[in-house]
Amino acid sequence: MASSLTQKTNRFAAVFLNIKQNKLFESIVVAVILFSALMIGAKTYNIPPNLLTVIVWLDYAITVFFLIEISIRFFAETRKIAFFKSGWNIFDTIIVVVSLIPIEDSELALVGRLIRIFRVLRMVSVIPELRTLLNSLLRALPQLGYVALLMFIIVYIYAAVGTTFFASVNKTLWGDIAISMLTLFRIMTFEDWTDVMYETMAVYPLSWIFYISFIFLNAFAFLNMLIGIVVNVMEKENAEQWQREHAGETTIQDLSDQIEELKQLITKQK
Amino acid sequence: MASSLTQKTNRFAAVFLNIKQNKLFESIVVAVILFSALMIGAKTYNIPPNLLTVIVWLDYAITVFFLIEISIRFFAETRKIAFFKSGWNIFDTIIVVVSLIPIEDSELALVGRLIRIFRVLRMVSVIPELRTLLNSLLRALPQLGYVALLMFIIVYIYAAVGTTFFASVNKTLWGDIAISMLTLFRIMTFEDWTDVMYETMAVYPLSWIFYISFIFLNAFAFLNMLIGIVVNVMEKENAEQWQREHAGETTIQDLSDQIEELKQLITKQK
Amino acid sequence: MASSLTQKTNRFAAVFLNIKQNKLFESIVVAVILFSALMIGAKTYNIPPNLLTVIVWLDYAITVFFLIEISIRFFAETRKIAFFKSGWNIFDTIIVVVSLIPIEDSELALVGRLIRIFRVLRMVSVIPELRTLLNSLLRALPQLGYVALLMFIIVYIYAAVGTTFFASVNKTLWGDIAISMLTLFRIMTFEDWTDVMYETMAVYPLSWIFYISFIFLNAFAFLNMLIGIVVNVMEKENAEQWQREHAGETTIQDLSDQIEELKQLITKQK
Amino acid sequence: MASSLTQKTNRFAAVFLNIKQNKLFESIVVAVILFSALMIGAKTYNIPPNLLTVIVWLDYAITVFFLIEISIRFFAETRKIAFFKSGWNIFDTIIVVVSLIPIEDSELALVGRLIRIFRVLRMVSVIPELRTLLNSLLRALPQLGYVALLMFIIVYIYAAVGTTFFASVNKTLWGDIAISMLTLFRIMTFEDWTDVMYETMAVYPLSWIFYISFIFLNAFAFLNMLIGIVVNVMEKENAEQWQREHAGETTIQDLSDQIEELKQLITKQK
Repeated sequence: MASSLTQKTNRFAAVFLNIKQNKLFESIVVAVILFSALMIGAKTYNIPPNLLTVIVWLDYAITVFFLIEISIRFFAETRKIAFFKSGWNIFDTIIVVVSLIPIEDSELALVGRLIRIFRVLRMVSVIPELRTLLNSLLRALPQLGYVALLMFIIVYIYAAVGTTFFASVNKTLWGDIAISMLTLFRIMTFEDWTDVMYETMAVYPLSWIFYISFIFLNAFAFLNMLIGIVVNVMEKENAEQWQREHAGETTIQDLSDQIEELKQLITKQK
Repeated sequence: MASSLTQKTNRFAAVFLNIKQNKLFESIVVAVILFSALMIGAKTYNIPPNLLTVIVWLDYAITVFFLIEISIRFFAETRKIAFFKSGWNIFDTIIVVVSLIPIEDSELALVGRLIRIFRVLRMVSVIPELRTLLNSLLRALPQLGYVALLMFIIVYIYAAVGTTFFASVNKTLWGDIAISMLTLFRIMTFEDWTDVMYETMAVYPLSWIFYISFIFLNAFAFLNMLIGIVVNVMEKENAEQWQREHAGETTIQDLSDQIEELKQLITKQK
Repeated sequence: MASSLTQKTNRFAAVFLNIKQNKLFESIVVAVILFSALMIGAKTYNIPPNLLTVIVWLDYAITVFFLIEISIRFFAETRKIAFFKSGWNIFDTIIVVVSLIPIEDSELALVGRLIRIFRVLRMVSVIPELRTLLNSLLRALPQLGYVALLMFIIVYIYAAVGTTFFASVNKTLWGDIAISMLTLFRIMTFEDWTDVMYETMAVYPLSWIFYISFIFLNAFAFLNMLIGIVVNVMEKENAEQWQREHAGETTIQDLSDQIEELKQLITKQK
Repeated sequence: MASSLTQKTNRFAAVFLNIKQNKLFESIVVAVILFSALMIGAKTYNIPPNLLTVIVWLDYAITVFFLIEISIRFFAETRKIAFFKSGWNIFDTIIVVVSLIPIEDSELALVGRLIRIFRVLRMVSVIPELRTLLNSLLRALPQLGYVALLMFIIVYIYAAVGTTFFASVNKTLWGDIAISMLTLFRIMTFEDWTDVMYETMAVYPLSWIFYISFIFLNAFAFLNMLIGIVVNVMEKENAEQWQREHAGETTIQDLSDQIEELKQLITKQK
């Protein structure tokens, strides 16, 4: 009985798997996401009210379509738990489920609009190449962690020093440690940093040391991060290449063993 | 009869091929393109009317010269179809043919000037090194495609969020999704981005999160694109080098076979 | 007797070593440093006077904690001299000892605040990963030395030339060689460099050559520095990889020796 | 007789070679160049007239010292022609000889100051490490040539198009092709490029295409140049490393020959 049920479920799942893996279905999904993205863009322009009504209805249609699509993908899985093991599936489900909640309150209307915007991110979860790309980006994140921490410590110390000295010069730029950190981030991007410097140099003529040492320290840390990543990537690349080249290949050790065998043959001959 | 005609055509083509491959001819073509580029530059200065007449006549002369040159290259080809298989030939032909159309209308005069400007691009089609360079640039384009798409999605989503929140703060920067995307591109180049930020922070004090997350996301995607290209280039490089080094070389497998032969020799001896 | 004393000292040191290597102890130290960093940040905001008293007391507590921590690390060392061989230990000790000096004078109060800020740097000395990172940054410094010297010479010469010509145009930007070098550093970061250029071009129309040649020279030197570092890193990387791959491995030379032996065996057989 | 003269000359040259290669002599030369650099810096400040007299006399002393130094290096050469084969020697000689010309005219006084400034460049010719660095920079130049040409063509075409359309909008930015090229270089450095764009967008709303395509094209060409250099450097590096690793080493081909020999030995035995 149970086995027959599993079989039925499997056959049921197979039907949905067929739909899910259908090229046409995939293209339609991408097209609908693109269309919803365009609609989000369109809504930022002044549009006549009757067109707006159409858009609201289209919005409902898209939500329903997404609900159907996610259901197909869910039912295509033979083991339902596996569906929720993929971060992308969870992301898609949340986006779709939240869109279903009817929002009337004007406060929450904004949240509703944001969710509609985030639906564009589904483009990433649907196109496999983008998913691969984003996965590789995320995998690179942890190795950036310690450099980011080091840069944060540098910025924090400079912000504390900056607030101590320059708060009296310009409250809006150096008022407290949070504002100072924002100002220092701005200096890191070279955005009008000399204006900030000339202002404090009028009071503390040697404050250029503060700015230039900060710029050099950050540039140096950034440079090292870049090099660190390149080296890391190369190491993996080289290791993989070495593996590819030498897989299943006769090694020098094998040769040595063969010659040893020969020697024993000759010795026995004597 | 037909064969004799083909022969005649071939001999005919050979004459033009001789001219085309002549070093002097090549140098003259480059010189004329350079001269036409200088004339385009000269026309942007105030020049006396009598000199302008000379320039107009020189312009005609250059057009005629280009027509002759392209004809020579066309007739140098034994199979005429092959001529249009090269994108550079098509590009050259279009530029030359369009220059031939007499333009009197003041509206189209601008188009005529533009075509004369694009004639400078013929420099690329004539100098082989530049052609190789541009071809390699174009070959690198597709691999940038998915990163460009990802960055476009990021910019689009941020533009949609930006318009939703900041359109009321500054219509000229965040009025609709197209303007917002332009503003975000400006922020990507760090051009006066703090002015944009401080303006919205006056209304939404937490909007710095919007800007800083955007800058980090883009910097991160850009970094990964850079690394992706470097790795890709290195992979090809390594593969090519490996090929060069090991082409026609005795491999360890060959040695193993030789030793095996030896063993059989010794065994037979017994 | 002496030996027994050494033994006692060692047992004494072992106790402290136990504490020092305790994971919980390490976590507490990191937590206290984090807390002291937060307190430095908190002090940049307006805080009620009674909270300020609390902070002053907490500050004393942190100083005492750091004193205890550094003592534990000192006593954990069996040979006390070894403790001062590590730059990090010296750095930590100085930070802690200087914090102990009671500062009442308002002039020195600023110094006291600065020392408290530099305590955040202890984060680097406590977290091993950050210490490794900083060590590798410091190791990369010398190889940057000559490029830095070359860039300094370029900036110095341009500053001398700039002061000679442009001091009469704008005293605040080109007044003396120090100010000119600051202005040139600003031009290197592309910060409003055209404003500086347009100003001098009004007097010396050809001065754009000065700016553009400076930008190109620096960009070129910077590019080469970057490449130099990448190559250097790669060289080390390749050498290390080669070592890893070939360590303890049978080499082709070994094979050649084996075959030589074989030959002698066969010859003797005759 | 002639031989004895040559011998005398050689002994004469050997004395100067001894001085030239003396470590102390080298250090004194570097110290004098450094001192002359400091004096150039000092002259940009307001200095009392009596100190100025001292500086003028010191200037003469430095010129005489450089004359002596260059003579020593000249006489240290056994074959005098070889001295002028080194570009650095020619550079040094020109700098020293030109400093000797007495300049009274106020017009030429400026030239005299410039020559004194360029004496700082002698630092590069004296310190071997800097000389090596600069040589490697110069060697990298030709490979940048074609990319530079391509970027120049891009800038030239955009400048021609920009002048055609925008000359009527802003004469000071787009007046003629030279000014337009300067404006485009400014846009390449992202320096206030949006101000330039917004101005022309008021007249031609689609002119953002002009700017953004220009930025992308240049960024793309620059990226490719960077990659091209890295690949080129890596190729050389790999080739050198391969040479180092395999120099004088037994190759697999050698092994194959050895085994072949063995086979013949065994066959003869039969």
